[in-house]
Amino acid sequence: MDPFESVDFGKSGGLVTAIAVDDASGEILMVAQMNEEALRRTLDSGEVHYWSRSKGRLWHKGEESGNTQAVKSVWIDCDGDVVLLRVEQRGGAACHTGRRTCFFRTLEGGGWVTKFAPLFDPKQVYRK
Amino acid sequence: MDPFESVDFGKSGGLVTAIAVDDASGEILMVAQMNEEALRRTLDSGEVHYWSRSKGRLWHKGEESGNTQAVKSVWIDCDGDVVLLRVEQRGGAACHTGRRTCFFRTLEGGGWVTKFAPLFDPKQVYRK
Repeated sequence: MDPFESVDFGKSGGLVTAIAVDDASGEILMVAQMNEEALRRTLDSGEVHYWSRSKGRLWHKGEESGNTQAVKSVWIDCDGDVVLLRVEQRGGAACHTGRRTCFFRTLEGGGWVTKFAPLFDPKQVYRK
Repeated sequence: MDPFESVDFGKSGGLVTAIAVDDASGEILMVAQMNEEALRRTLDSGEVHYWSRSKGRLWHKGEESGNTQAVKSVWIDCDGDVVLLRVEQRGGAACHTGRRTCFFRTLEGGGWVTKFAPLFDPKQVYRK
């Protein structure tokens, strides 16, 4: 059976939510979107591709920074509208702010507190 | 500063993606949606509330099954449109199929393989 038949791209206009998890630590790195082509390229190439809503195009994660994500395993939720990818995060940082995870702020005392320092300087990595 | 100002409910029609993670094991339990009221009730009550798109109403997780989620910490991503909740999953199972996580299927040999057995029988727990 085609595994794509179990993925529900219809609920959110052709997109599913995709979560990248560090395969070694289990830490959630980032959340983005995939369309069918992004998931297909991810499975075919072994490197994670998303659909970027801001860029309006397929986004090979790490295409600028070099911090690509190598797929270790792929999971799907009960409804079929969320894909979870366990990955090896090359360069050790998934977030465009230079931090290892996009989830670096936590609620403490009624406000958001930043917990992790950047591992790279975004100004040195992104051309624009 | 009001922590809600950092949460971007505008990008997806008043909803943000919410991820529940088992605080003890780090395992991702489920992914759902929250509107502002759901997040507010979650923070006020200390128990996770989602916005159910299928029910079209606020959904106090565990309201039928008793498997509520007690909030341990709240995190937000760099874009402010994904909220991550580290929780204590009461009853040990988050999924409506009775499994501890909604992510119980993984891709192997070109098909989805079920990895975890149910911890409860949904027919015994849900009235409809």
